[in-house]
Amino acid sequence: MHKIAVLGSGSWGTVLANLLVENGHDVTVWGRAEKEVAEINDQHTNTHYLPNIQLRSALKATTSLKIALTNSDAVLFVVPTKAIRSVAKQVSAQLAKLQTKPLIISATKGLEQVTDLRISEVLAEEIPVALRQPIVILSGPSHAEEVIKDDITTLAVASTDELASKQVQDIFMNDHFRVYTNTDVIGVEVGAALKNVIAIGAGAVHGLDYGDNAKAALMTRGLAEITRMGVALGADPLTFSGLSGLGDLIVTCTSVHSRNWRAGDALGQGKKLKDILENMGMAVEGVYTAKTAHDLSIKENIDMPISEAIYRVLYEDKDIQAEVNNMMKRKGKSENELMRPRF
Amino acid sequence: MHKIAVLGSGSWGTVLANLLVENGHDVTVWGRAEKEVAEINDQHTNTHYLPNIQLRSALKATTSLKIALTNSDAVLFVVPTKAIRSVAKQVSAQLAKLQTKPLIISATKGLEQVTDLRISEVLAEEIPVALRQPIVILSGPSHAEEVIKDDITTLAVASTDELASKQVQDIFMNDHFRVYTNTDVIGVEVGAALKNVIAIGAGAVHGLDYGDNAKAALMTRGLAEITRMGVALGADPLTFSGLSGLGDLIVTCTSVHSRNWRAGDALGQGKKLKDILENMGMAVEGVYTAKTAHDLSIKENIDMPISEAIYRVLYEDKDIQAEVNNMMKRKGKSENELMRPRF
Repeated sequence: MHKIAVLGSGSWGTVLANLLVENGHDVTVWGRAEKEVAEINDQHTNTHYLPNIQLRSALKATTSLKIALTNSDAVLFVVPTKAIRSVAKQVSAQLAKLQTKPLIISATKGLEQVTDLRISEVLAEEIPVALRQPIVILSGPSHAEEVIKDDITTLAVASTDELASKQVQDIFMNDHFRVYTNTDVIGVEVGAALKNVIAIGAGAVHGLDYGDNAKAALMTRGLAEITRMGVALGADPLTFSGLSGLGDLIVTCTSVHSRNWRAGDALGQGKKLKDILENMGMAVEGVYTAKTAHDLSIKENIDMPISEAIYRVLYEDKDIQAEVNNMMKRKGKSENELMRPRF
Repeated sequence: MHKIAVLGSGSWGTVLANLLVENGHDVTVWGRAEKEVAEINDQHTNTHYLPNIQLRSALKATTSLKIALTNSDAVLFVVPTKAIRSVAKQVSAQLAKLQTKPLIISATKGLEQVTDLRISEVLAEEIPVALRQPIVILSGPSHAEEVIKDDITTLAVASTDELASKQVQDIFMNDHFRVYTNTDVIGVEVGAALKNVIAIGAGAVHGLDYGDNAKAALMTRGLAEITRMGVALGADPLTFSGLSGLGDLIVTCTSVHSRNWRAGDALGQGKKLKDILENMGMAVEGVYTAKTAHDLSIKENIDMPISEAIYRVLYEDKDIQAEVNNMMKRKGKSENELMRPRF
């Protein structure tokens, strides 16, 4: 039984916090919105993110980072990618004052804009080693709405510190939530971030009215180019066949609930990015990640034809059908080129 | 432009033959049923397998293996797994009499019952090297009904002879049918065969009313155990992330058209195997492959928990929900165990 601070009271943060209470831990969710925090404490609900769901009554919430972090054995980050650095700075400042040195866990997916850094790199930059235990990444195919119903879910926890990832495995695992350790942090984080671009492609394939063969082609060759990039960045290629790579790709590319998929579907139907984003009313992470993938592909000199085509449609207003046609005219390749990732 | 014999006038054989005609080759389909052969020659249709589809008028059909094979540069096997050895014997007898030494291509998926041999091994046993060019395997995510509509499709061609696989790539590739070479014949064949067991599992997950997280878990961990077995049999683990492994798994596990998926769905709903097979009225390949996987898992000492659970439900009348529950109670594992496949 551990004392755990969960930073972020959105859908995924609340669901993971509730799961940790189910597993017998002493859990406090830190949120910014007073009303939401009060609702979790008083009504045991978070209706904005999880309508019609009753949370466990032992789950506590607070707007005070100090209260959340006091005596914590573990801190779980579940804030948006763009907020990760500023929240980590605040955590670091608090930990410097508190007599606690927690495990740092992140369930945030993405790469930091401008720096292209992975979440674990941002956390390591902002929270000095003296103030914390190792950093562990939690990632995999997981719609929050299914986890809260105790549906079966599997995730990967990755850390360069094997003992730390086993501790996190023990903290989270139960008979409906199964956790696998992995030592390849780079692979787990890169897979989780870049798959959002391929999800836009999977939506586009649907919007363009192609069938299941084309969808399988896009996902398989999409994973191949993510793997090429991951290997260039130092990942083990096999990580991309795991839960954070393939598993998350399957959930994102075959679910109409994914915002990335829906944006791609609309692109495929000929709609313009500006209108799609206005219509969606919220951020579509894969749109930003397409820019990151484009930058990385140039920097690392890696061939990423699918991500590049999506980039050109999103940022250079290219015709999506013409991009598909061009891709199909590329010269014949070998699948074994996965291992020889350069152009 | 090549002279090609396509052996098998079912759905996939007819569609591949039609594609080869589109690519400018001189193609003869060999079939057993006189009526079907006459229909292809006279009406340019094969309505039993491909209703409402017009075939190219240059496509020829014959019931004479000798006519089909005469002067052939390539022979494409598209017969059921259980017929592959007897047809190969007949081909060998004909080739011994003819002045031709064709490439041998197989689009048949599966493992031979009793021997557990791969298709390329059966072909190599039955057709002596002196009578043929190398053997090349064609495999990947491909509903025939989509290929015939010129929908986008990608496949892998695998051969230990790289030149031969490049020749086959050139023969098949066009702007809607994209072919990737691969040197790992074992991986390509094992992936294509064992994925049918996992497809039964994906159907069962649906029939048991689990969600997308569980489906992604089953497919990812299913691919992990296929990979473990493949590595034990001599395959490259990365092949299973390719078109014949992951790609085919996606198409089979996310399409309600797959017989394996449908059988699994019915199992998940509590129906009995005998009734399911009677209802289906045709063979469900994954049911046989589950037995093969079980035998191989014992012989090679490889842990295949999902395939084993499906085997117990199919052959030992075990309760499917109890099997799922037991799987979720297994001790925590590492994803990196993929590389260390023994128990």
